[in-house]
Amino acid sequence: MAALFRGSRNVLLRWNKHVDFAFVSTRSMASKTPVGFVGLGNMGSPMAKNLLMNGYPVIATDVFPESCKELQDLGAQVVDSPAEVAEKADRILTMLPSSPNVIEVYTGPNGILKKVKKGSLLIDSSTIDPAVSREMAVAAEKMGAVFMDAPVSGGVGAASMAKLTFMVGGVEEEYNAAQELLTCMGANVVYCGQVGNGQAAKICNNMLLAIGMIGTAETMNLGIRLGLDPKLLAKVLNMSSGRCWSSDAYNPVPGVMEGVPSANNYQGGFGTTLMAKDLGLAQNTATNTKTPIPLGSLAHQIFRVMCSRGYANKDFSSVFQFLREEEGQ
Amino acid sequence: MAALFRGSRNVLLRWNKHVDFAFVSTRSMASKTPVGFVGLGNMGSPMAKNLLMNGYPVIATDVFPESCKELQDLGAQVVDSPAEVAEKADRILTMLPSSPNVIEVYTGPNGILKKVKKGSLLIDSSTIDPAVSREMAVAAEKMGAVFMDAPVSGGVGAASMAKLTFMVGGVEEEYNAAQELLTCMGANVVYCGQVGNGQAAKICNNMLLAIGMIGTAETMNLGIRLGLDPKLLAKVLNMSSGRCWSSDAYNPVPGVMEGVPSANNYQGGFGTTLMAKDLGLAQNTATNTKTPIPLGSLAHQIFRVMCSRGYANKDFSSVFQFLREEEGQ
Amino acid sequence: MAALFRGSRNVLLRWNKHVDFAFVSTRSMASKTPVGFVGLGNMGSPMAKNLLMNGYPVIATDVFPESCKELQDLGAQVVDSPAEVAEKADRILTMLPSSPNVIEVYTGPNGILKKVKKGSLLIDSSTIDPAVSREMAVAAEKMGAVFMDAPVSGGVGAASMAKLTFMVGGVEEEYNAAQELLTCMGANVVYCGQVGNGQAAKICNNMLLAIGMIGTAETMNLGIRLGLDPKLLAKVLNMSSGRCWSSDAYNPVPGVMEGVPSANNYQGGFGTTLMAKDLGLAQNTATNTKTPIPLGSLAHQIFRVMCSRGYANKDFSSVFQFLREEEGQ
Amino acid sequence: MAALFRGSRNVLLRWNKHVDFAFVSTRSMASKTPVGFVGLGNMGSPMAKNLLMNGYPVIATDVFPESCKELQDLGAQVVDSPAEVAEKADRILTMLPSSPNVIEVYTGPNGILKKVKKGSLLIDSSTIDPAVSREMAVAAEKMGAVFMDAPVSGGVGAASMAKLTFMVGGVEEEYNAAQELLTCMGANVVYCGQVGNGQAAKICNNMLLAIGMIGTAETMNLGIRLGLDPKLLAKVLNMSSGRCWSSDAYNPVPGVMEGVPSANNYQGGFGTTLMAKDLGLAQNTATNTKTPIPLGSLAHQIFRVMCSRGYANKDFSSVFQFLREEEGQ
Repeated sequence: MAALFRGSRNVLLRWNKHVDFAFVSTRSMASKTPVGFVGLGNMGSPMAKNLLMNGYPVIATDVFPESCKELQDLGAQVVDSPAEVAEKADRILTMLPSSPNVIEVYTGPNGILKKVKKGSLLIDSSTIDPAVSREMAVAAEKMGAVFMDAPVSGGVGAASMAKLTFMVGGVEEEYNAAQELLTCMGANVVYCGQVGNGQAAKICNNMLLAIGMIGTAETMNLGIRLGLDPKLLAKVLNMSSGRCWSSDAYNPVPGVMEGVPSANNYQGGFGTTLMAKDLGLAQNTATNTKTPIPLGSLAHQIFRVMCSRGYANKDFSSVFQFLREEEGQ
Repeated sequence: MAALFRGSRNVLLRWNKHVDFAFVSTRSMASKTPVGFVGLGNMGSPMAKNLLMNGYPVIATDVFPESCKELQDLGAQVVDSPAEVAEKADRILTMLPSSPNVIEVYTGPNGILKKVKKGSLLIDSSTIDPAVSREMAVAAEKMGAVFMDAPVSGGVGAASMAKLTFMVGGVEEEYNAAQELLTCMGANVVYCGQVGNGQAAKICNNMLLAIGMIGTAETMNLGIRLGLDPKLLAKVLNMSSGRCWSSDAYNPVPGVMEGVPSANNYQGGFGTTLMAKDLGLAQNTATNTKTPIPLGSLAHQIFRVMCSRGYANKDFSSVFQFLREEEGQ
Repeated sequence: MAALFRGSRNVLLRWNKHVDFAFVSTRSMASKTPVGFVGLGNMGSPMAKNLLMNGYPVIATDVFPESCKELQDLGAQVVDSPAEVAEKADRILTMLPSSPNVIEVYTGPNGILKKVKKGSLLIDSSTIDPAVSREMAVAAEKMGAVFMDAPVSGGVGAASMAKLTFMVGGVEEEYNAAQELLTCMGANVVYCGQVGNGQAAKICNNMLLAIGMIGTAETMNLGIRLGLDPKLLAKVLNMSSGRCWSSDAYNPVPGVMEGVPSANNYQGGFGTTLMAKDLGLAQNTATNTKTPIPLGSLAHQIFRVMCSRGYANKDFSSVFQFLREEEGQ
Repeated sequence: MAALFRGSRNVLLRWNKHVDFAFVSTRSMASKTPVGFVGLGNMGSPMAKNLLMNGYPVIATDVFPESCKELQDLGAQVVDSPAEVAEKADRILTMLPSSPNVIEVYTGPNGILKKVKKGSLLIDSSTIDPAVSREMAVAAEKMGAVFMDAPVSGGVGAASMAKLTFMVGGVEEEYNAAQELLTCMGANVVYCGQVGNGQAAKICNNMLLAIGMIGTAETMNLGIRLGLDPKLLAKVLNMSSGRCWSSDAYNPVPGVMEGVPSANNYQGGFGTTLMAKDLGLAQNTATNTKTPIPLGSLAHQIFRVMCSRGYANKDFSSVFQFLREEEGQ
């Protein structure tokens, strides 16, 4: 299988399978035709803006009409439902909180598939269960449309600066069509294989991230209690085999790094409740495939307990604070 | 506290405390006077060779006389006991398997401290309990000698190529004397603070390494079972927040990387039994300091179960194989 | 809410809600009219036999026709599909391996609900996700039938001797109708509340059982390695606060008790793969309800690893063997 | 090996080894000669009272003189140091918080062994590391005295009512001499084998207790969130294979049982910090003997985190509250 990377990486796209040109030709490939966008939350809004900035007319909708205001001022056309978006655009992106929302937006009574044009390209950037992505792909195919999953790595800042990483699953022949749009919003676009594989890659990454973060928090806390200076310990880890993203790019100990949530009382960043949700997806896929994930499961439980103990809305690196002895004890 | 780095990194050495020159002057600072070496195992032997290569006469001993043969052929003087080493050299390195060996070699009936010269510099590169390092330092001080702990990161290969990382604990005034010798055997020498802090840093690093390795094994296994190509998944992780040393430098999945134990049926490398031992040290220090280490503890237990199930002598990255579904199931 | 117990326990049945007699009257309440049975596996077969023994005509089916042979010889009428069972009986029991089987047997093209009579009582004794039980109840209600979940505690032996415990969920007004049949097959029938609650109680019990079993295995192993005699240790635990079903009724250490799987090389009993399946259900319900279950999750992972390491078909108490040091290590 | 039980159980004492009568005869076996008692804390004080009540003259001491006041009023003779106790009594009990205190009281400058009479019987009821018990036994033997470990199960209430369980380790020939005194303070006295085995049994029991308690808390919480009534769920568990002491005798859910800490806001009972200490001992012995204890380790970490989050002084069953979703979340 070809690994397809874009951005600073080498792009190699193989048209090694039969391509149904008749099928593809029904979609407007002339660039700068309208692009639909459903879901204008913290992530979706800056992503849609970047499409506008790149010259694409945007047809947008959101369950909360006020979320559309800013985008409308920038020139987007706002409509009432996903079905209406599908009437006016044959390339549509969706960015939604969780699986039930995705099911509703695609297959609900006012959903995209109610009015989707044959040959439309539907790209879902939500982080959801890969099985739901596959169901949506089957439902879309029945209507003559193509569904791809393209969840993102990177937060609101990366979304604003078009620095997201997209992990894309879907038929390889449609990948470059998806890539045309995704490169407007991200710095890296990675082709991961069949539909659902983007979700799988995202879930895997976040599980390892969660493990690395708790591990870093435990390790830094232990080192501090053994008398080590936290900055020194971080330096030692980062030049040794303990090195990981959580130690060298997002250290959870206040005072070790600037510009990370631990330097700002764990505000901003990636909320514990969102991490717990992603670990729930990882757990579900692991249970379904009978795959043992002892540390992944325990990480899930730790973030879940944190949600019960008041850390739900703090950045997930606050696990350092959670594990640390309280003052005065 | 000053963080002191050497090698490709910035060296800043502050003589910011009163230095007892009278005390230091009793030791032969003229370089190339004999250096003692106790413990010529897989690690100690290449380390001692590197001292010889750098022009230091070496006075060596080991409980297994045959271990000394090769070094003797290279010109080292072999003696019968640590005490005899201490009679002939006032700078001594020790590299031993575990705490009881260190206690024996320093304080036993034929131990270094029985014959140590006043002002001698004693550097222990074993990985042991920091509390034992501190005991040895107190015992050495009573005899007018200086004890430092300097455990290493890096395996037999790094020892042979003088690419080890040393994490050094001990009085800051003696650090540059230690550094003179350690730079012959390692690429990085890091000053970690008071005696025992080298061990603390080593233990912390290895605990995070263990967590990262099991986490990487779980994640790769989950991704593979979800249909992802292992090489592609490793690439995605390594460009994302899941990145860690175990994913990008020592990947546990056969076929992903060359030149690592997973490419060689998990032979060589760092044995599961050794990792279990280091995690036992981490657990002990955590229990003693009442520090919660949920993932560290579970990692310890997983490697301990692996030892019970036949993985004791395989590289610790074989946890991937341990977690994986058996063929035919 | 009334807790309803049967058997040696007090039975109190409150008809404290309006009862739709017109609705109930459509079902044949005269006892000894035919009872349907779908699923004649290791558990279902002896259960159906006990209905026959109690004088109920049985209409049975199974996907494997050969499973029906013995029951047929005992006088049961064997038919081709669940739909046919539903045509001939208005009280039906189902005993199936997992959720997808239950969905198929009830709502599939030849399923019970295709031909179910109005007012029929459908009792499912499979152990499945409570959410699926609730879905089946809704689907049954649309056809004018009543669905109850009644999973069992106890194995093949208890099924043969009519000593099962049933945990029943469903509308309280139907509980005594269900009880009439269930008492032929079990020693205890417990009413647990609305539909799905039987499954919930079963899942909770098995999660705590799994934790207790692994805990007992770890504890016995630790005690043995500390020099304690296993029988003595079991006695001490059983007279102290460590007492649990796994220590006093199903001890996992060979030689401590007679008549349990540990006395028979872990053959028979409750397979590790089945326990792993039940823990998967517990994990799913916990994830869905955002409930932290740290030990339950770890127990799930341990049994999952055991399945990967060759213990899938041994009794789940073989976790003692799994954790134990191998001979010669 | 003979298991020796007392109380409601059968007592069988085998004098099947050679008994050194000459040795034993040096100790005053005439009953009602003075008994020493060191450590008059929450547990030691009622224990010593029960000796007085049984007619034994008591010679007592404690580092806090005020702790001795009440016992003095009841007729005990209070002295200044353990050494003085040893001068005046040849049967001595000690009840101390942790290993360092035991080491000090026996081998310190004013310790028992400084003045112990030949043939004295020294019984330590503290919960400590079995290795320390063995060290004390060796030290005692050098002075011609006999040391036994006899840690207790049961809290302050059981101590007051002479309902403790003693787990006794030491030479079997001395067991009945120990038993004479211990039966004044406890309802069950169990002989566990050689010195240290009492500690081993105690540690094992408390580890399984800890696992059972967290497991019960998780299970009850999950059941409640799935819609089960807590009292009903407890009943179901207690008649099924999930049954354990924590579910049927000390249920952690408020409202399920009377007279337990969960009915009193988790006050009284066995503090989380004490359970964490005992699990630390279990972890140490497991690490030293290379025994995997995955659930025991995780239980240790959970109670340790609870200590960091404000639960240190609540009863250990407050883990139910710790895991539960906060109000308003």
